[in-house]
Amino acid sequence: MSAERRRVVIIGGGFGGLYAAKTLGNHLVDVVLVDRKNHHTFQPLLYQVATAALSPGDIASPIRGILRRYTNIQVLLDEVVGFDLNGRRVHLNDGADLAYDYLIVAAGATHSYFGQEQWEAFAPGLKTLEDATVIRRRILLAFEDAERQAAEGRNPGPLNFVVVGAGPTGVELAGALMEIARGVLAHDFRRIDPTDARVILLESGPRVLAAYPEDLSRSAIQQLRTMGVDVRTGSVVTSVEPGLVRVGNVVIPSAVTLWAAGVAASPLGKMLSSNIDRAGRVPVGPDLSLAEHPEVFVIGDLAAAKDESGNMLPGLAAVAEQEGKATAKNILRELRGESRRRFHYRDKGLLATIGRQAAVARFGRIHLTGLVAWIAWLSIHLILLIGFRNRVLVLVNWAWAYFAYQRGARLITDIEPIGQHIAAAEREKERTG
Amino acid sequence: MSAERRRVVIIGGGFGGLYAAKTLGNHLVDVVLVDRKNHHTFQPLLYQVATAALSPGDIASPIRGILRRYTNIQVLLDEVVGFDLNGRRVHLNDGADLAYDYLIVAAGATHSYFGQEQWEAFAPGLKTLEDATVIRRRILLAFEDAERQAAEGRNPGPLNFVVVGAGPTGVELAGALMEIARGVLAHDFRRIDPTDARVILLESGPRVLAAYPEDLSRSAIQQLRTMGVDVRTGSVVTSVEPGLVRVGNVVIPSAVTLWAAGVAASPLGKMLSSNIDRAGRVPVGPDLSLAEHPEVFVIGDLAAAKDESGNMLPGLAAVAEQEGKATAKNILRELRGESRRRFHYRDKGLLATIGRQAAVARFGRIHLTGLVAWIAWLSIHLILLIGFRNRVLVLVNWAWAYFAYQRGARLITDIEPIGQHIAAAEREKERTG
Repeated sequence: MSAERRRVVIIGGGFGGLYAAKTLGNHLVDVVLVDRKNHHTFQPLLYQVATAALSPGDIASPIRGILRRYTNIQVLLDEVVGFDLNGRRVHLNDGADLAYDYLIVAAGATHSYFGQEQWEAFAPGLKTLEDATVIRRRILLAFEDAERQAAEGRNPGPLNFVVVGAGPTGVELAGALMEIARGVLAHDFRRIDPTDARVILLESGPRVLAAYPEDLSRSAIQQLRTMGVDVRTGSVVTSVEPGLVRVGNVVIPSAVTLWAAGVAASPLGKMLSSNIDRAGRVPVGPDLSLAEHPEVFVIGDLAAAKDESGNMLPGLAAVAEQEGKATAKNILRELRGESRRRFHYRDKGLLATIGRQAAVARFGRIHLTGLVAWIAWLSIHLILLIGFRNRVLVLVNWAWAYFAYQRGARLITDIEPIGQHIAAAEREKERTG
Repeated sequence: MSAERRRVVIIGGGFGGLYAAKTLGNHLVDVVLVDRKNHHTFQPLLYQVATAALSPGDIASPIRGILRRYTNIQVLLDEVVGFDLNGRRVHLNDGADLAYDYLIVAAGATHSYFGQEQWEAFAPGLKTLEDATVIRRRILLAFEDAERQAAEGRNPGPLNFVVVGAGPTGVELAGALMEIARGVLAHDFRRIDPTDARVILLESGPRVLAAYPEDLSRSAIQQLRTMGVDVRTGSVVTSVEPGLVRVGNVVIPSAVTLWAAGVAASPLGKMLSSNIDRAGRVPVGPDLSLAEHPEVFVIGDLAAAKDESGNMLPGLAAVAEQEGKATAKNILRELRGESRRRFHYRDKGLLATIGRQAAVARFGRIHLTGLVAWIAWLSIHLILLIGFRNRVLVLVNWAWAYFAYQRGARLITDIEPIGQHIAAAEREKERTG
């Protein structure tokens, strides 16, 4: 009997893949979930790891652990390198092939530098735990370097943090950076004054949080400015270099530059379709399957899925989660001989946090700002975090951060030899200048 | 007035350096603490990070944060590369010099491979958070690799974990590895049975925990064997190679080899004395200072300090802590015009944990084993952990681990491309074989 079971292969253990797997759990199908990481990352809180409020372990959970009670699900730590769509096989990095009856591709997205990939070295983006650790290290080292230079009688220069892109991630990073400088580190140094640090948020468009209603964008800018963030809209970055960012003729010195401007879908998209859009997303039908391969579904940030009105669905955890569940249910329906249903996104709203008691939120027609939005954000994220243990730990961490004005995860690990990135930047300057 | 203040430079933010600094805190001296890491690591619990029970953030704390309330202390993130003992200056990695009136060198120790440094790549040791993360990754990847090979119809081979050296670290690692295989991961895999994994503990000497009383060594071996650990005393490792360990003519296949056998003092020792001992430790007088430079103190694992009976003091956190406090007090005494006192170590006992409800302990003449020793270990380590926040987090983590038979920190981060270490091992085999 188990020989007759159909096999569903899921690529990716993010929100889409994980909820697809859970929905298929303990049903009469064999499920193989392939991910190149062993853990699910709760991406909405990555910026808190990058800014030393939480530890990597607080927002990540081993995929095997999450799915252990579903005996029909197998988890493989491997990387997908290609497809044989006609032969219904997935090619794995270690040379093996994986056959499927149904395929769910939920491989997500990474940052895009709009063709300027050389900027990445000087302005890392934030998509993985490793990215978050790199950013945390650079932020903390910027203060350490300035203190050391001051102790040696040298002028450390301006302590500027430049964030490029004012979507939710950019806004959250800018707010958290301001809190670090003004609160957390304020009394940690002897030679420099961390409260002198400046945070500059650059946005090419006319407003921050472009996907949000206009009144919330205005409120977000106001809350950011009240905190001391220098918000500059209509600022198109023309160059990112070691120690500086250029916006046209304006040169902005920058100790640490962070990239929150562009998103590109996983390169697996190209292997699934010759019709990917500019962001690399794969066009899918109303049931999220490929037109020529109805047994292949694409969900989450990799999918160019549209709602009933023809609007593109945004790259949100809630969208990926609902798509994962809906796809799994469609597969189960088809195995029972029923027909598929079209995907319908139930809009749960939008939420972005800016800082201590500062946030914006939209739930249906209700718009919230400030403390109320912040409390909503806090409650919802605690509930959403997968796994009881992480929830308790995150709560303890947040309570500590709130009452003690401290951030517990201020570790610089896997340290780049001291001064190396500065030396590298200086060499680069000589070479190019 | 502040121009007349004496300056104490402390090298290292481990137990010795940190307690020296705290003791000098808010006294009328200027203190500069230099460390190449920004955090203090609670080394006695490193093995818990290596075995995925705790996260790096749980056992580490930023040095700046610990010392922030002492306004006379400056913390510098830098590496010491040399000394000018006559000129009373420390050379820093970034080219600057640091003048001192008193110098406290507490630079600690690292692992020693007894001249076989090429073994390190195949058998990492455990001294830093980075080491712990590497070991955690290798352990978790060994299970993942076996599962993937089994899923592809290949024979994954025996899942052996070999620990070399049965001091406290080796015993703790072996016990924790057994718990991972038998408890934590038991239900996580579909193709392999983690409970088939074997843990082999190799000790060159006649007994485990050689520094402990003999009855406790015997109890430790018995507790380890009850857990399923294969303990082999009198086993001198003659070669560590990719995928195997040799003990004379016996070849032991090994998926992961861990090194807990040797300790070598920091290379800074050589720059302080031409008289270092075989372990690289610097001989010091009864007040822990250098014979020819009474203004220079060496403490902790880097010091070859003797007690009143002429016995070498062991490399324990408690020794380093007491030495740090005593040295700081001697400096303050001298500044007040009083004479120094000789260092006297107050023996607090010895404690090693083996696993769930398994440990051995000696307090004065009292010897404890099993559950009682384990409860003593648990209580003491919670109290010792520096900083309230870490204590709460560690408690939550431990309670979770205990009641749920789970380990929360099972993250594989900074992943080496899959199969890379296996491929590297195979290349190495071809090259050498």
